[in-house]
Amino acid sequence: MSNVKALPLLEPEAHEAVAPCCPPLTERPFTAEEAERTARMFKALGDPVRLRLFSAVASAEAGEACVCDISDVGVSQPTVSHHLKKLKEAGLLTSERRGTWVYYRVEPSVLAAMSKLLTTTATP
Amino acid sequence: MSNVKALPLLEPEAHEAVAPCCPPLTERPFTAEEAERTARMFKALGDPVRLRLFSAVASAEAGEACVCDISDVGVSQPTVSHHLKKLKEAGLLTSERRGTWVYYRVEPSVLAAMSKLLTTTATP
Repeated sequence: MSNVKALPLLEPEAHEAVAPCCPPLTERPFTAEEAERTARMFKALGDPVRLRLFSAVASAEAGEACVCDISDVGVSQPTVSHHLKKLKEAGLLTSERRGTWVYYRVEPSVLAAMSKLLTTTATP
Repeated sequence: MSNVKALPLLEPEAHEAVAPCCPPLTERPFTAEEAERTARMFKALGDPVRLRLFSAVASAEAGEACVCDISDVGVSQPTVSHHLKKLKEAGLLTSERRGTWVYYRVEPSVLAAMSKLLTTTATP
């Protein structure tokens, strides 16, 4: 019999990026650390090709898409894969391998947190 | 007497960037043109220093700030000016010169439009 126990899988980088850390940008000046974490997410959406891919996944009928579903953005499949990986690293997408393909889905909590960052508080 | 008339000042680039062009990213895949316009705004917030400056202006008491008000982000005044100009070019800030200083304020309609882009529609 083995002594090895299944430990919960830790994904430190993903978790770090995903955490909706911060108040709305209009509430108070961000600290350097808050800005560092948050800028990563905005940067991931700051590229036109990546933004198109993100909206392709985000609006996919089944709520998920693989590279095999995406063919009309005018870049090669390796480039599509590269950008989807970047979006995942920024915490905006999650992925699951099934057979040959990796399927991506939007992480709704992160999207909601980003949306909240941009809400304007009514000022006098 | 002079024939020169004051013409209304056109700011084509600023106007173009400001227009809240697009539906939520989750609604349908973005076209290349929509992605191009929208990525500019996200890219502007995709830099930690720029994001700190943006939140400093956005949360300023009078609703506006000049370079003279911002001194604690650890970069030089010319760098602060450069980043504020970038944020303005992306349509996220507006500016007004008064005396020696240029005062910046957040463009709330653009912020609201970006926030809306990130809203998640309930999917089955």
